[in-house]
Amino acid sequence: MSVSVLRNYINGQWVESSSSEFSEVRNPATGKVLARVPMSGVAEVDAAAKAARAAFEKWRRVPVLERTAVLARLKGLILDHYDEIAETLTREHGKIKSEAATELQRAMDNINVASSAPSLMMGHNMEDVARGIDEYAITQPVGVYASLNPYNFPAMIPFWSLPYAVACGNCQIVKTSPLVPMTMTRIFELIHEAGFPAGVLNLIHGGADTATAIMQHKDINGISFVGSTPVGRIVYETSARYGKRVQVQAGAKNWGIVMPDANLEKSVENIIASAYDCTGQRCLALAGILCVGDTYERVKPLLKAGIARRRIGDGLDPQVSMGPTITPESRKRVLDYVQKGLDEGANLLVDGRNVEVPGYPDGNWLGHFVFENVTPDMSIAKEEIFGPVLCMLRCDSLDDALKVIHESPYGNAANIYTSSGATVRRFKYEAHCGNLGVNIGVPAPMAMFHFAGTKDSFFGDLHAQGRDAFKFFTEETIVIERWFD
Amino acid sequence: MSVSVLRNYINGQWVESSSSEFSEVRNPATGKVLARVPMSGVAEVDAAAKAARAAFEKWRRVPVLERTAVLARLKGLILDHYDEIAETLTREHGKIKSEAATELQRAMDNINVASSAPSLMMGHNMEDVARGIDEYAITQPVGVYASLNPYNFPAMIPFWSLPYAVACGNCQIVKTSPLVPMTMTRIFELIHEAGFPAGVLNLIHGGADTATAIMQHKDINGISFVGSTPVGRIVYETSARYGKRVQVQAGAKNWGIVMPDANLEKSVENIIASAYDCTGQRCLALAGILCVGDTYERVKPLLKAGIARRRIGDGLDPQVSMGPTITPESRKRVLDYVQKGLDEGANLLVDGRNVEVPGYPDGNWLGHFVFENVTPDMSIAKEEIFGPVLCMLRCDSLDDALKVIHESPYGNAANIYTSSGATVRRFKYEAHCGNLGVNIGVPAPMAMFHFAGTKDSFFGDLHAQGRDAFKFFTEETIVIERWFD
Amino acid sequence: MSVSVLRNYINGQWVESSSSEFSEVRNPATGKVLARVPMSGVAEVDAAAKAARAAFEKWRRVPVLERTAVLARLKGLILDHYDEIAETLTREHGKIKSEAATELQRAMDNINVASSAPSLMMGHNMEDVARGIDEYAITQPVGVYASLNPYNFPAMIPFWSLPYAVACGNCQIVKTSPLVPMTMTRIFELIHEAGFPAGVLNLIHGGADTATAIMQHKDINGISFVGSTPVGRIVYETSARYGKRVQVQAGAKNWGIVMPDANLEKSVENIIASAYDCTGQRCLALAGILCVGDTYERVKPLLKAGIARRRIGDGLDPQVSMGPTITPESRKRVLDYVQKGLDEGANLLVDGRNVEVPGYPDGNWLGHFVFENVTPDMSIAKEEIFGPVLCMLRCDSLDDALKVIHESPYGNAANIYTSSGATVRRFKYEAHCGNLGVNIGVPAPMAMFHFAGTKDSFFGDLHAQGRDAFKFFTEETIVIERWFD
Amino acid sequence: MSVSVLRNYINGQWVESSSSEFSEVRNPATGKVLARVPMSGVAEVDAAAKAARAAFEKWRRVPVLERTAVLARLKGLILDHYDEIAETLTREHGKIKSEAATELQRAMDNINVASSAPSLMMGHNMEDVARGIDEYAITQPVGVYASLNPYNFPAMIPFWSLPYAVACGNCQIVKTSPLVPMTMTRIFELIHEAGFPAGVLNLIHGGADTATAIMQHKDINGISFVGSTPVGRIVYETSARYGKRVQVQAGAKNWGIVMPDANLEKSVENIIASAYDCTGQRCLALAGILCVGDTYERVKPLLKAGIARRRIGDGLDPQVSMGPTITPESRKRVLDYVQKGLDEGANLLVDGRNVEVPGYPDGNWLGHFVFENVTPDMSIAKEEIFGPVLCMLRCDSLDDALKVIHESPYGNAANIYTSSGATVRRFKYEAHCGNLGVNIGVPAPMAMFHFAGTKDSFFGDLHAQGRDAFKFFTEETIVIERWFD
Repeated sequence: MSVSVLRNYINGQWVESSSSEFSEVRNPATGKVLARVPMSGVAEVDAAAKAARAAFEKWRRVPVLERTAVLARLKGLILDHYDEIAETLTREHGKIKSEAATELQRAMDNINVASSAPSLMMGHNMEDVARGIDEYAITQPVGVYASLNPYNFPAMIPFWSLPYAVACGNCQIVKTSPLVPMTMTRIFELIHEAGFPAGVLNLIHGGADTATAIMQHKDINGISFVGSTPVGRIVYETSARYGKRVQVQAGAKNWGIVMPDANLEKSVENIIASAYDCTGQRCLALAGILCVGDTYERVKPLLKAGIARRRIGDGLDPQVSMGPTITPESRKRVLDYVQKGLDEGANLLVDGRNVEVPGYPDGNWLGHFVFENVTPDMSIAKEEIFGPVLCMLRCDSLDDALKVIHESPYGNAANIYTSSGATVRRFKYEAHCGNLGVNIGVPAPMAMFHFAGTKDSFFGDLHAQGRDAFKFFTEETIVIERWFD
Repeated sequence: MSVSVLRNYINGQWVESSSSEFSEVRNPATGKVLARVPMSGVAEVDAAAKAARAAFEKWRRVPVLERTAVLARLKGLILDHYDEIAETLTREHGKIKSEAATELQRAMDNINVASSAPSLMMGHNMEDVARGIDEYAITQPVGVYASLNPYNFPAMIPFWSLPYAVACGNCQIVKTSPLVPMTMTRIFELIHEAGFPAGVLNLIHGGADTATAIMQHKDINGISFVGSTPVGRIVYETSARYGKRVQVQAGAKNWGIVMPDANLEKSVENIIASAYDCTGQRCLALAGILCVGDTYERVKPLLKAGIARRRIGDGLDPQVSMGPTITPESRKRVLDYVQKGLDEGANLLVDGRNVEVPGYPDGNWLGHFVFENVTPDMSIAKEEIFGPVLCMLRCDSLDDALKVIHESPYGNAANIYTSSGATVRRFKYEAHCGNLGVNIGVPAPMAMFHFAGTKDSFFGDLHAQGRDAFKFFTEETIVIERWFD
Repeated sequence: MSVSVLRNYINGQWVESSSSEFSEVRNPATGKVLARVPMSGVAEVDAAAKAARAAFEKWRRVPVLERTAVLARLKGLILDHYDEIAETLTREHGKIKSEAATELQRAMDNINVASSAPSLMMGHNMEDVARGIDEYAITQPVGVYASLNPYNFPAMIPFWSLPYAVACGNCQIVKTSPLVPMTMTRIFELIHEAGFPAGVLNLIHGGADTATAIMQHKDINGISFVGSTPVGRIVYETSARYGKRVQVQAGAKNWGIVMPDANLEKSVENIIASAYDCTGQRCLALAGILCVGDTYERVKPLLKAGIARRRIGDGLDPQVSMGPTITPESRKRVLDYVQKGLDEGANLLVDGRNVEVPGYPDGNWLGHFVFENVTPDMSIAKEEIFGPVLCMLRCDSLDDALKVIHESPYGNAANIYTSSGATVRRFKYEAHCGNLGVNIGVPAPMAMFHFAGTKDSFFGDLHAQGRDAFKFFTEETIVIERWFD
Repeated sequence: MSVSVLRNYINGQWVESSSSEFSEVRNPATGKVLARVPMSGVAEVDAAAKAARAAFEKWRRVPVLERTAVLARLKGLILDHYDEIAETLTREHGKIKSEAATELQRAMDNINVASSAPSLMMGHNMEDVARGIDEYAITQPVGVYASLNPYNFPAMIPFWSLPYAVACGNCQIVKTSPLVPMTMTRIFELIHEAGFPAGVLNLIHGGADTATAIMQHKDINGISFVGSTPVGRIVYETSARYGKRVQVQAGAKNWGIVMPDANLEKSVENIIASAYDCTGQRCLALAGILCVGDTYERVKPLLKAGIARRRIGDGLDPQVSMGPTITPESRKRVLDYVQKGLDEGANLLVDGRNVEVPGYPDGNWLGHFVFENVTPDMSIAKEEIFGPVLCMLRCDSLDDALKVIHESPYGNAANIYTSSGATVRRFKYEAHCGNLGVNIGVPAPMAMFHFAGTKDSFFGDLHAQGRDAFKFFTEETIVIERWFD
């Protein structure tokens, strides 16, 4: 893993990029450069797409049991290198190693569900739809797909599509985020070793222009994107302009409702993990809590005490609870939001501005932030901050709390802390968010369920993971058959 | 049905359009004006969308068994007025009455499948996804949908979406084609009678601008479109730009392969019906046959004899086999293609240019056309003609025939005439079209299967009809639930 | 309906029974004889089975859309005669007319779900299970089925199997209970009118010997039985001895847990309906409540007050809340249990022994019974009484209450009254009964879900209703297909 | 593997049987004793059942992802010892080692499908089945199951149930055949190593009395049996008498139809493998061919030539095509059938009676037998021989051939050799056997499909493997939920 300049993996081979533009991959805890990553161009995308297209005609003929057997080999190889990959992930991304390991487990979970393809990609059929005429929906792969990946889950998010795409008989191009390209580069070394035929899986490093070239390429049938809402809108429209299938997972602003009948100790413990794990850089992170009735005052001391127990530092140090943010720019963006929150009249119950980590003068450090006296109209209550910032709002009632959720343009997640069945029923019925937690701050769907954002948090109809993935990556060709005597 | 100016149906009421722009609905067999139809504007679309949005909050709370009970009443009312509706359809569209009746049956079939919603829209769930944590995918309606409909199946195509949308708890806006707005207007009278709450179903007449207003409206969550590929591309991109779910069924060029081992008598009988029924104005119409080996010469006399038995005229006359084309412009468009075919070197085995129907001097009449000596590069072999024109190509082998299909940008349908299982297996595996017929020229999926176009014949991922419809018209909200003691 | 001697319906014709043994059908409210019903013999069963077998070969060839169309006609006919059938049902059975109407609605619900057969009976398939080899599971009907029906739901229970059997392409023999044969006789007149081909559906009146002849008949492939556990055991074993598919819904003893956090007013209202509606003669009737903590004393006055508002009498009188028991023997059986309860040390909070209904001196009247101070070891706490008797037990905790449920040999239903999500989670996880109610005393599954008894309440694996029904009434034939060049 | 007296595996420990009765396991090729196996008694069954029952309460609480992770470890261990297990299997059973390896692969395939449990055992649910009332079918494990296994597939058949049972959260007792107990004993050593909690999986050696004790044990909820039809009938009835779920895969007599349009060379090659692989000792073995028209004479020389190329001997010798039969008694049983066939008038086209294998004087050797001039009424045409005997019948037509299949009491498998789609359609529609092959003599369903015998070849309704397995090994508990405010 001493790669200084990362290469693309095209048609079964590691290829140096012909690009003259490169970006640096830095360790967010130390600021040190770990690698240089190319901004691949149109020609490289074209080479990958053509390789994938050519590989498709053979790969689709490989029976699904053999395709999933290759996935099983990949799973074995990842297991064999689990610790090493998690460490690479922590180094380039900053998240603590146990978070990296959990993320990798989620990738494995998706391999497992994709390995159910022999059952889950089956078609359906009916004898005698009319006398002597039978009809079948035969499930067939589509062709070539690409995934455009964000920086926050370098190992997991590519696996929301990759294993399903190939289990179903398609080929795929994976574009990494230029901030965290090393983890997937390492995994692609294992992909190579696992024995996927050349061209079935291809890795392209690059940025926005690379993504555009992918969306415009005529040999690519579908796009899986995860990122922000503004970029997501462009991806949705551009992919559509080029006639592609497309699924876009976008931004979020996730609220938790705290009801007076909740178990507050356990709830606050969960709130803290939900808000600050992964340094708040996840689309399911808890952005704020809507404290109904007297819970507002009761929650505060618990929050402060809980946060006080957390330690910030290098994710490779097992004592650390929270790593740095991804880049200095990202750190500044969060601090700007904090200032805006103060300017708009909120105040900091917990102030994470002046954090220092001894021995790591160049890390992108931020502490924990809790804003109190937040109102729904403030920027910090409306916009996605994507950092370790939690907003506290007072609500008179469940109705008031649901109103805040309804008025958000986002619909990724919401959760509620309560012990009441009736309250949960109303919440499930009325929250109108895709992923709902009951006493669970980060309702991340298991791999056998889809990841269900709504509103501006998702564009398209078939989601990542679970049964939806099998639909997104297949055609169900209709055959209507009759035989003349 | 003596409506002279058609009204919109918004929020449970028949409303006169405020538009100053109107179009005329003419009987294609007689040229007579049957009604005037408004080109509804932005304000009318807004009124319908707002009504639908408001109705949604109530309609989603109506249990699915009650929602399907309203559909059952609608089905009963359509059955009670079956003949009358079929006659209206024939009058405004021109297709013969038995075709109209069959079309209406397909609409009913979709009501039946949509009435399976209590079973088919179920969510799924798993106990203990982790210790003490349960996960559910709860199926919920999305909100407001709209359908943008073409002229060729005035009764059936709106029912590819309407019954599923409302069975799943959504509200819908139906935009008719201004060429054939009367059939759905009549059906909406029955919808009113059936007892759908105000705002659940809305009818808007209009043209391209009306459609644009619909695609741009923020209260509408999804679009179902059926029409040509160029318009479909615009609809796909525009709907995506506005963040909507979208399914686009577009153009076609459907080929049939005739193998030497086919039962030629029965095959040609089927070829004739597939090419000329509905005057060739259907997206599954057979556009040409790829005659392998000696079948080219053997098919010709059978084709000529079969066509000779067919009679052209007013669709209300039970002796008639084929009605007029929809408009004079459409007729001219077909004749221009015929001329282009001749110019490019094909010749007419059967020439339908100089057809007259006594007593109907103003009908948009066309006869049957069979082009022979067609080659794959000719316009008539590549472009969708949408009229009673069949092209004959010679092929040396199944490989050659499949090549013609592969090179078409369209993927709506293909079919094969053969008695060989091995040949059919290759065809199913390699045709890469969505709807495949085996000894069936028009492989129209039954309503419990989806309508599966591919390539430039479909944009999106979830198709009309069948199981796909239930996915397109619902969210499956994820709930992850734990209870603290 | 002035039938004095009921006939069998075999092979599309009403046939007088050749039996010399007859039973009387009496109105339980008046004691008057309504009809005489034959105890059909082996020859009659044989005639029906042979007719069904012969009809099968044709009926299975009728496409499923046509088969469900006949069911739709039957549904229309039942709707047209709804009130009349409900009245017949009340007359022969005694339950009040609104209960009869609700029961009939449940029959209709099953027709609706069975009408989803075009979607729900589909098989499944996979291309290329090995190179060039495809595999299909093709759903096909099995042959001839029979249902053996109890007296308590004369209209509903036969429809747990009938519509699924025929929608899937099978033929069926329905054996009525000799106590209530008139409702199904009337419905079979409508079945005849609906246009089922001769032999597809057959009605046989009779008793235990008739049932035995059915179970032994080699032309019958499967048995659906609903009745008591002792008889159910015999049916399960006997059907197995003759190699048949078999599903046996048997006895019950259903408990409700009342938790201190329940809404007691609404809960007791529900408890009363659950215990006494249908005069307690239903397999989901609430047999007793397990009152946790102080709820025991709080429930008592609410129970007494609620029961006091109920009126006993002829089910045709719209003021009446509860009809008579089915027979004098049944009435005596209940009274014997009451005496046994008193003997074993329980006492009656509400005593229904000396009820009289003016003008109905010969009705099988019973009032409402509430036993207090019941302990788990008493006969009235262990055995199924099948009458309007509710037992009250004191429990210290949820654990204690669950213990009573666990120790019951039955597993038909259980329910809990509470407002706590955590309590419900434990209950769902640990009750080990098939049908669980949360604040619902009679958790009767809707027709699109199966009816899920466990332990001694069900023998077999595929239940009635819902998706299970489609499995029970079909084979999924495996086809593995390869073609040599 | 030098076990001289095999032990049972109960509650996580290897336990010596207390039985005084033992049977010898002999190598069918050499006659040498490999081990002694106990005929375990009632007390041992009781110990296993109690251990399983106790383990169940904990195992069901282990999340399905963790349960399948243990299965994954078992799969890894089997892969690590693949060759060794296959060799053990060949030693105790006699089949050639490549057959043993293939069998083991089928066991692994079932582990793979069972590992799809996170998706495939999901329940289903519907919001608002009535206003404010939600309904769920929650999938839960049942308890304790047992499998009763035959001698012919010592490794595969236990895996038709084992992985599904435990993936779904049940515990299981596996009873081996006393003829071939060593393979599963070895696999249970790996099961122990894989880390299944004590009691989850238990191994009991024994015979008919052991099986009876299992069927009678009240703590066992379900039985999976594979064996002969006479024994299967007893198992079906006995299991039912004790109220258990039960699936019985029984005997067979599988016919192949040879049509004049078949590719005879490839067909005969396939016929030979289908009839003689595994020495004909498999329930899907091809028992006879129904030669339509002139194929009878054309097939004969091809058959003779193909058989001539096959070599008989010790399965460990890689040059060998066919091993011995399982026991001297089995060998004698086949020879008795051969004599009966001759007595009834058939004659031997190929005579396998006097086969000797040099160096193996005590092996249970039989050669290949082809009977010609067989008629449907002969014993050899009607009864299951379960040895390397193929019968040839002449048929005038497809109708005649189908008649032979229809008149068989068995319905395990049938196949057809043809190139015609129309012929295959008739065959699929009319053969009424569970597993149908098209140009495939042994239509063994892949693990993701169920194994679909009918008629006297299967008793029960839910089959082994595939989706059926998940139904057989779970309850879907119904929960109907409402919350009072």
